[in-house]
Amino acid sequence: MEYPTRLIENAVNEISKLPGIGKKSALRIVLSILKENEEFTQSIADAIVKLRQETKYCRICHMISDTEDCTCMTPKRDTSIICVVEDTPDIIAIRNTAQFNGMFHVLDGLISPIDGIGPENLNIDSLIRRVNIPENQVKEVILALSSSMEGDTTAFYIAKKLKSFGIKVTTIARGIPVGGELEFTDEITLGRSIVKRVNYEMNED
Amino acid sequence: MEYPTRLIENAVNEISKLPGIGKKSALRIVLSILKENEEFTQSIADAIVKLRQETKYCRICHMISDTEDCTCMTPKRDTSIICVVEDTPDIIAIRNTAQFNGMFHVLDGLISPIDGIGPENLNIDSLIRRVNIPENQVKEVILALSSSMEGDTTAFYIAKKLKSFGIKVTTIARGIPVGGELEFTDEITLGRSIVKRVNYEMNED
Repeated sequence: MEYPTRLIENAVNEISKLPGIGKKSALRIVLSILKENEEFTQSIADAIVKLRQETKYCRICHMISDTEDCTCMTPKRDTSIICVVEDTPDIIAIRNTAQFNGMFHVLDGLISPIDGIGPENLNIDSLIRRVNIPENQVKEVILALSSSMEGDTTAFYIAKKLKSFGIKVTTIARGIPVGGELEFTDEITLGRSIVKRVNYEMNED
Repeated sequence: MEYPTRLIENAVNEISKLPGIGKKSALRIVLSILKENEEFTQSIADAIVKLRQETKYCRICHMISDTEDCTCMTPKRDTSIICVVEDTPDIIAIRNTAQFNGMFHVLDGLISPIDGIGPENLNIDSLIRRVNIPENQVKEVILALSSSMEGDTTAFYIAKKLKSFGIKVTTIARGIPVGGELEFTDEITLGRSIVKRVNYEMNED
């Protein structure tokens, strides 16, 4: 595409580097920016620069935080259960369910030999250390990882490492999504959900 | 939604002000930014601030330009035909067809009493001045405006203003889109295209 000016072309190229934004959306954004006042662009620009410069990661749970000590150790949360996730969006998703009140631990990725990511590149050692500290009284580690080759490999590796501690290691349930129709479920999920079937629980209230 | 940090919340709020980006897309962008180095965000921030601060509008055709004199008067283009458009994206669209080699004139909006936009808020006077300058030798003004109430009102107003100059005033053809099937065309377009039917041109080559 031919752009009217060099400034527009430059801005389109920069904005289209962001995920989910193509050249056409970027051009639409650029043309809308030109209709706003200068404070508008300055305020967006400041927010993204500050975001990148000032965001910290918690020393304990490795979650994105405003400070190096996040609220993960707050007494309101159950410190005896640690939910292990790949990345921060997973925490947001789990928090939004309002079904979990324990602690989190961000691995910052999954074991993936094809991408050159081994266990040493992830926050696994610090997880073991957290479990190892007696005051933490960790009773359970939940592996809330993706149902992929990498997720399964990482779960297996961590479960093996945690074996000697004699604590409960669980994984989130996999199966047919709530509201999902059987005939439209993919074969692998359906097959797995038959093999890993669970006892029927009758809700009598 | 609950965001992990104040910085993320602020960045999500700022980014979701842009057109076509909701809170979810903004969060995806924010989390991807955190994985890039600081030059990445600085470069995007600079591009949008610079875009807004340095973009000029041509004094003659009012098109977005790097300088106050854009390339609209270049001898390569046919200066005797002026194509009047609402805004810059229309120029990009018309240029991409490679079917027009004349000049452009950006109105910067359409007459819309409901939004308080009258002819005096648009670049109509400067269009009349351009037509009035003998050296320009303007022979035709094409009204390439949207097929809406506002577009029709604006076209009518400009056509009336240009009447005394004795030049040709045309409007872009409206009808069934090329490749469009008759049965799926909306009633108004179809009705209009019957009323405004044209002589059949036989291409014998």
